[in-house]
Amino acid sequence: MAQSFALSCPLPITKHKHIVMGHGSGGRLTAQLIHDLFLPAFDNPLLRKLDDQAVLDVAAGRIAFTTDSFVVTPLFFPGGNIGELAVNGTVNDLAMSGARPVWLSAAFILEEGFEMEELSRVVAAMSAAAARAGTAIVTGDTKVVNRRSADKMFITTAGIGEVPEGVAISASAARPGDAVILSGSIADHGMAVLSKREGLELEGEILSDTQPLDRLVAAMLAAAPRAIHTLRDPTRGGLGASLCEIACSSQVGVEIDARAIPVREAVKGACELLGIDPLFVANEGKLVAFVDPAAAAEVLAAMRATPAGRDAVAIGRAVDRHAGMVVMTTEIGGTRIVDLPFNEQLPRIC
Amino acid sequence: MAQSFALSCPLPITKHKHIVMGHGSGGRLTAQLIHDLFLPAFDNPLLRKLDDQAVLDVAAGRIAFTTDSFVVTPLFFPGGNIGELAVNGTVNDLAMSGARPVWLSAAFILEEGFEMEELSRVVAAMSAAAARAGTAIVTGDTKVVNRRSADKMFITTAGIGEVPEGVAISASAARPGDAVILSGSIADHGMAVLSKREGLELEGEILSDTQPLDRLVAAMLAAAPRAIHTLRDPTRGGLGASLCEIACSSQVGVEIDARAIPVREAVKGACELLGIDPLFVANEGKLVAFVDPAAAAEVLAAMRATPAGRDAVAIGRAVDRHAGMVVMTTEIGGTRIVDLPFNEQLPRIC
Repeated sequence: MAQSFALSCPLPITKHKHIVMGHGSGGRLTAQLIHDLFLPAFDNPLLRKLDDQAVLDVAAGRIAFTTDSFVVTPLFFPGGNIGELAVNGTVNDLAMSGARPVWLSAAFILEEGFEMEELSRVVAAMSAAAARAGTAIVTGDTKVVNRRSADKMFITTAGIGEVPEGVAISASAARPGDAVILSGSIADHGMAVLSKREGLELEGEILSDTQPLDRLVAAMLAAAPRAIHTLRDPTRGGLGASLCEIACSSQVGVEIDARAIPVREAVKGACELLGIDPLFVANEGKLVAFVDPAAAAEVLAAMRATPAGRDAVAIGRAVDRHAGMVVMTTEIGGTRIVDLPFNEQLPRIC
Repeated sequence: MAQSFALSCPLPITKHKHIVMGHGSGGRLTAQLIHDLFLPAFDNPLLRKLDDQAVLDVAAGRIAFTTDSFVVTPLFFPGGNIGELAVNGTVNDLAMSGARPVWLSAAFILEEGFEMEELSRVVAAMSAAAARAGTAIVTGDTKVVNRRSADKMFITTAGIGEVPEGVAISASAARPGDAVILSGSIADHGMAVLSKREGLELEGEILSDTQPLDRLVAAMLAAAPRAIHTLRDPTRGGLGASLCEIACSSQVGVEIDARAIPVREAVKGACELLGIDPLFVANEGKLVAFVDPAAAAEVLAAMRATPAGRDAVAIGRAVDRHAGMVVMTTEIGGTRIVDLPFNEQLPRIC
């Protein structure tokens, strides 16, 4: 069941500083958690009804539907936390279809003993992130597992968005000739989490780029609604994996120039120090677009006029040779094949 | 990101018998897991596109949206497993609004070292359950966490259903005079999980009642579309908690007769042995309905004509006294107040 308790239900008086098994019981402690924490933070008319499901009005057309689980460790990292990530991640997956994100769900798996204060901070961040993207968290669930059966907290969000008429964006829709446009610097999120996790003393602070991309996408669509063929937010696996997937899905070749790809100095330094390739490091607030070349300049200008696309650059193009393969011109002018990473470079990054 | 890999992407040749961190990397091993396991099991045209989101056609009207995480232990129990539960649970939350379940998402959190063979069995059960309810799993996600950071596997499903015109079912819509109808015996699921977990040698086998309730609800709505005021599937917290929630939400009194509530002999015996009140034990294939008394006989007959409602019985009524309170006539003819349980009777039951 999703959860539901009337505002009039009797609640216990005891306050807990830590999550106990009873918070997942479906009884009074669950009701207290909902009323004291989730409802005030996520408050909206749909959630307030507290049925086991939200009932939503839709117009005839197309909706986008997506889900993601978040298991990042540590929960709080420079530039964000698991709650912001969980909302922005689902908002961005919706936006990558051209959809306007509208409704979100949030399901929590909590470890017995998890600090209530940390939960509150995560929930507050989710609430702010949902508002920032113009979305509402309309339904949810909480489960509690015994100590050492989970690592503090996991969050799974799902989302529904409305796809504008005429928009048909897909990883399989890139075409030879398309301009490849990147919305900003890469590898910030992954290196921010890693630096915090490993307690690295780095020169210059590295912040996660976690942010919603719905407005950036709306600006791109407004500029050239039918010219955007493919959008992808390069999270796990980084820009490298996203480009490989698009090349495979669309059966086009992709050629990019490493010298055009922005990487912040501090991130570059940390990657070099640790022997990590920024091309395969997760981003949480960037997108890569395959755009009709005739509209590329216009789309790029529209991107640069938004906060999330300020540093947008063209990094290459799709070609009709070496279908399914990504080839990169390196910093020193050589060429290299970019391949899907086999294994895990940075575990539990999102 | 949700996950996406073209069918044409190169895959590794190695086969793993256990989940490794790389299965959550967003790289080749993730692609292999999707292509070898998830795609063949859940196959449908929407999932096959492997974008980070599914794009769905909707008619103008209302949709229901819900989510639940599943953390049951053990993963396999008499009568079902976590996969079946994850699908049926979300199908049933949708059905409790009167909606026809249509689309599901599935997000997996897997512990490093989890056996691939167990994952396969869970996924096969999900596929069968989704088909049984006429639904499709159209989008998903997989994360892997290191050993001892999760207990084998957790599944979070979300779902979207279509609410028929004119249907307005809610926990807050029960009215004094309504007949309270229960679709069958209580406490089967919780006691099945508990008996397996504790290795109890019980007389008579206890099986979980996990099953989809969408057809039962459709039959009820066909019989008397506007007479169904409230529907609830009494999962965590059992029938007792569901009745308390409805009494509170609708601000009605509820009077039920314990002698009318079916409890299987083996379940009754196990509950007595362990000092557990079946009224608060989870069900995963039952519903309780508050129905206009004028239509109650007709609705009951329609329920009994379906497999999931074969044993449906009237167990009481809503009254206009003691609003928010549930009063039960006991087996020996006394009366007792049924109150929301404070704490956890049976942890990790769903």
